[in-house]
Amino acid sequence: MESAALKDCFDELATEARELYLDSTVPFLEGTPSSIDFLRDWVMPNKPVVFQNATWSAHSKWPNHDYLRQVVGREEISVSVTPNGYADAICENKFVMPEERRMQFSKFLDIMENRENYSGIFYVQKQNSNFTEEFQCLMNDAERHIPWATEAFGKQPDAVNFWMGDSRAITSMHKDPYENLYCVIDGAKTFALIPPTDQPFVPYEDYPAAVYKETTEGHFEIINDPDTGSVPWIAVDPLDPDLEKYPQFTKARPLTVTVKAGEMLYLPSLWFHHVQQTHGCIAVNFWYDMEYDIKYNYFKFVENLVKSTRE
Amino acid sequence: MESAALKDCFDELATEARELYLDSTVPFLEGTPSSIDFLRDWVMPNKPVVFQNATWSAHSKWPNHDYLRQVVGREEISVSVTPNGYADAICENKFVMPEERRMQFSKFLDIMENRENYSGIFYVQKQNSNFTEEFQCLMNDAERHIPWATEAFGKQPDAVNFWMGDSRAITSMHKDPYENLYCVIDGAKTFALIPPTDQPFVPYEDYPAAVYKETTEGHFEIINDPDTGSVPWIAVDPLDPDLEKYPQFTKARPLTVTVKAGEMLYLPSLWFHHVQQTHGCIAVNFWYDMEYDIKYNYFKFVENLVKSTRE
Repeated sequence: MESAALKDCFDELATEARELYLDSTVPFLEGTPSSIDFLRDWVMPNKPVVFQNATWSAHSKWPNHDYLRQVVGREEISVSVTPNGYADAICENKFVMPEERRMQFSKFLDIMENRENYSGIFYVQKQNSNFTEEFQCLMNDAERHIPWATEAFGKQPDAVNFWMGDSRAITSMHKDPYENLYCVIDGAKTFALIPPTDQPFVPYEDYPAAVYKETTEGHFEIINDPDTGSVPWIAVDPLDPDLEKYPQFTKARPLTVTVKAGEMLYLPSLWFHHVQQTHGCIAVNFWYDMEYDIKYNYFKFVENLVKSTRE
Repeated sequence: MESAALKDCFDELATEARELYLDSTVPFLEGTPSSIDFLRDWVMPNKPVVFQNATWSAHSKWPNHDYLRQVVGREEISVSVTPNGYADAICENKFVMPEERRMQFSKFLDIMENRENYSGIFYVQKQNSNFTEEFQCLMNDAERHIPWATEAFGKQPDAVNFWMGDSRAITSMHKDPYENLYCVIDGAKTFALIPPTDQPFVPYEDYPAAVYKETTEGHFEIINDPDTGSVPWIAVDPLDPDLEKYPQFTKARPLTVTVKAGEMLYLPSLWFHHVQQTHGCIAVNFWYDMEYDIKYNYFKFVENLVKSTRE
């Protein structure tokens, strides 16, 4: 098969996705859906959507830092620290993970309120179900799962994560093997979302792993991490893509959506996403294990085709 | 890309489907599912299943031909007639459609009971929602839709079809753009089912269209139908495949399932299927429009790849 013919097929896959079923912008729906509508209209076709007007007591309580200090201030939590806001991202041709620090949550709030006094950019973003592990004291203000989603997926979430951080902290483009319900409690998050059918235009490279380390105050070094070895990661930053090196990326057509306090994004499995936020934005997200079914099967098939063209 | 590499990718698509989520035989479940379980466990992953113990009054009434004659015997209905049992199938390198005859249903029952007295093989198989059009008198014995399926799909069936025919009548391998619930009322149907991910192994050819016509008693001719033009159809008969011409078909792995009276097959959209039946078998099937979403999108992508390799 001619590689030009394969490229035509990739182009048609992405174009037909837009013509047949993808929305040109992420829709916003008032209120929460029934489990069957959620499953039929969004999960099955693998389409993002925002549900408005979530009503947890967290939405009124958590924007008040005094409340947070009182309830959870003394808890020791994990914080990611980087010099540039990029944790788990490409720097100097390496895949660089953040420095992980343990501190009391009240200390982290001090940093959020006076960031100019601290070196580094701080982000609570530990995706190990840190909400149920480190922020138990806040759990009564929120939900431990989303009942209509749990019924739709037929299972409890695998992880519930708490997020709070600096506006300079950015999550680099990646995908997760999870169905994701992302609830913004305070502030706003802006997602750039690329559908799985654009996969052929999203370049991956293998990078040696490394970790940031603040060796002297204000000075971060990049330390190689040979134990982790090599990490395949997306080679373009959608905010500043190198289109000379990766011209195919112009064909990827991100949907951009800003999710505000009280709103909940359904971010379907295998969508590539890049995330920015307002300063001090607080969010909780629910990861439900994805199904390794026909959609995943086809996604891997496209991945194998892309790999074959590179070999 | 090397065509050998593309073949490897096709092989892996089909193999991973079996390793990840396809069942090695079609499962039988007792009773009917909830709409959400049906959608999550079978429709979303596009997997066939049989639900047992449907309980319509049709199941006790329709096996009695006296009852059928009394209720619907005088209605004029459409019957497909062929010399060999193959309607909409390949013969003499043409796509040959059946002769369509109109007759009272009581006449059709006479033929079923004394088939040796008639030339040709008769099959009530008109897929134009003939159940709601031609067999209205029987509708109170059955359901006009399947409530849990209607809720799952979020719509009413597009067509409800009534099937009754000779054991020699065979439905050649094909696929439909429908989600199909196939309910056997009397007798049994045997389906050979090939998953959509085996598509690269299922050869299509273009055939000129034609129609059977019994020109003198017992003698059928094949009359060309230039108005219909050329029809793409599956080039192998799974009961007698020409593996020298189509060696790839050995990689297709049909699931065979026999559905008996009181059982209902969910036959997912885009599965290839070939159907045989016991003599006088009666069935009703419900066609719900399929969604032209990501699964269809990927299916067409594979179809385009297959076409490209032929050009």
